[in-house]
Amino acid sequence: MTASALPMVVPLPGLPDRVRIHEVGARDGLQNEKGTVPTEVKAEFVRRLAGAGLTTIEATSFVHPKWVPQLADAEQLFPLVGDLPVALPVLVPNERGLDRALALGARRVAVFASATESFARANLNRTVDEALAMLEPVVARAKAADVHVRGYLSMCFGDPWEGAVPVPQVVRVCRALIDMGCDELSLGDTIGVATPGHVLALLTALTAERVPTDVLGVHFHDTYGQALANTLAALQYGVSTVDASAGGLGGCPYAKSATGNLATEDLVWMLRGLGIDTGVDLGRLVATSAWMAGHLGRPSPSRTVRALSHEDAPADPKEQ
Amino acid sequence: MTASALPMVVPLPGLPDRVRIHEVGARDGLQNEKGTVPTEVKAEFVRRLAGAGLTTIEATSFVHPKWVPQLADAEQLFPLVGDLPVALPVLVPNERGLDRALALGARRVAVFASATESFARANLNRTVDEALAMLEPVVARAKAADVHVRGYLSMCFGDPWEGAVPVPQVVRVCRALIDMGCDELSLGDTIGVATPGHVLALLTALTAERVPTDVLGVHFHDTYGQALANTLAALQYGVSTVDASAGGLGGCPYAKSATGNLATEDLVWMLRGLGIDTGVDLGRLVATSAWMAGHLGRPSPSRTVRALSHEDAPADPKEQ
Repeated sequence: MTASALPMVVPLPGLPDRVRIHEVGARDGLQNEKGTVPTEVKAEFVRRLAGAGLTTIEATSFVHPKWVPQLADAEQLFPLVGDLPVALPVLVPNERGLDRALALGARRVAVFASATESFARANLNRTVDEALAMLEPVVARAKAADVHVRGYLSMCFGDPWEGAVPVPQVVRVCRALIDMGCDELSLGDTIGVATPGHVLALLTALTAERVPTDVLGVHFHDTYGQALANTLAALQYGVSTVDASAGGLGGCPYAKSATGNLATEDLVWMLRGLGIDTGVDLGRLVATSAWMAGHLGRPSPSRTVRALSHEDAPADPKEQ
Repeated sequence: MTASALPMVVPLPGLPDRVRIHEVGARDGLQNEKGTVPTEVKAEFVRRLAGAGLTTIEATSFVHPKWVPQLADAEQLFPLVGDLPVALPVLVPNERGLDRALALGARRVAVFASATESFARANLNRTVDEALAMLEPVVARAKAADVHVRGYLSMCFGDPWEGAVPVPQVVRVCRALIDMGCDELSLGDTIGVATPGHVLALLTALTAERVPTDVLGVHFHDTYGQALANTLAALQYGVSTVDASAGGLGGCPYAKSATGNLATEDLVWMLRGLGIDTGVDLGRLVATSAWMAGHLGRPSPSRTVRALSHEDAPADPKEQ
């Protein structure tokens, strides 16, 4: 790397010493890909992510293949990566999904709920409370099997049908997921509309309802370029789990230039500059995302991946 | 716009009530374009930016056409926009540039200096101190003509040849520019490497050297996706002038996918969500950047521009 290729380390007071990155590229990223990615490529992706130092890598989804055909090979994929020395959560929508995951020896699962009625109906064909009721036995059985359970909550800030989502509505569903037995929550800004004050307001309201900050993760999408600023606001509140997707994989397949998840590399750049330990080797991670971008046939939307893939270009002497 | 197309307004305590956006798209953005943009298109770009509510629009540059051929039409352009009811600063490198700007009736000029010896040599073929000495009569004559002077300082955080730039080195040049008579300073992260702790460290050091925060603007490039998070850190310190480029125009012409300046739209989205007044109509600004992207023949790198240009796309029911 050139002299410029790493940020200077200058901590910001009041931030966590360590941040755990929950890497979602292999699941949230690839589930939106149009083409089929071969199972062996997915497995190699997960292996390279682990090699780059990521310690929590969401591997795949046991949603019915009818809904997410891109991850229909979960049964074939999981055994290929199950022995990696990292946490490998898998998404399970219901008891049937849990059965499939447990049969393969999964030790961590993630369930998902919606903060809004519109998305619950569109995604799950249920009301919010019906969806929660459906999750109850899933979480109970996972906990009985000593399996760690993450709860994803979608549409925590805005909803494409309903607009801004009231904070108390989100808090109520978070509380229900915690009461049900979820070990951690991931607060999803599914459509990327959140801004830092809104993030702080939700976190503060969750504290007021006795949801401990250390069970919270944040899951920002970069649709409007807000993901990293929102992450900074969450870190300033004390959140230390951040979801991100290698290379910024993900996003809406119906809008080809729309951007998806917060890119892991952009997050790692900021955390490294802030002196916050993640254990990630940025160079290996960038190389992994560049390799995956080659398989997908298009450039990574991660600005850091693009910049470091072009780092041999000369600086522009005219640039201010 | 759809229900989701604006952020919910939730202020973050401690931020400025108002932010002045210093729009640099027509100068910093277009100076890096390979092709020639017709003068009338540039003029219409400036007019549309003013129509969208931007109040400070850097119009062009009086750098010698040999160095920035893209802006060689400054004499033709400025009279086409000079009557707009907005501040229209122009870049002047030296006394000759100042003469040209004053002859056209410019009321605001911007000079530029480097925080590093390497960039001073590459960009100005001078040492840092030689470059400052050259600027002294420029600033003095501008002030004598009652012309407002902005001082740009490049490479405030990192330098492609030297790596991380020591904070005291930056503070020294800032102090010199203020002592020379500059009315405001723009702290440039020319290569986009800064992270929020580094931003805070520089701002704190400037305060310690009696540089008032209200003369400071920040100028972030989004090369590593850090620009908006860094802006948030600067706002939290009390900075209320932020440079941005409509549509995210700018960037290094030698690396075609490298991103450039902070996109004005991404900034406006965050400020609007934070309840901070800018006077900008986001819809008109997005339309302006989409129009300009059409002239340039490639999509805007602004995530907000892309998202709002695709806002009729259906939401993805499978996305988490």
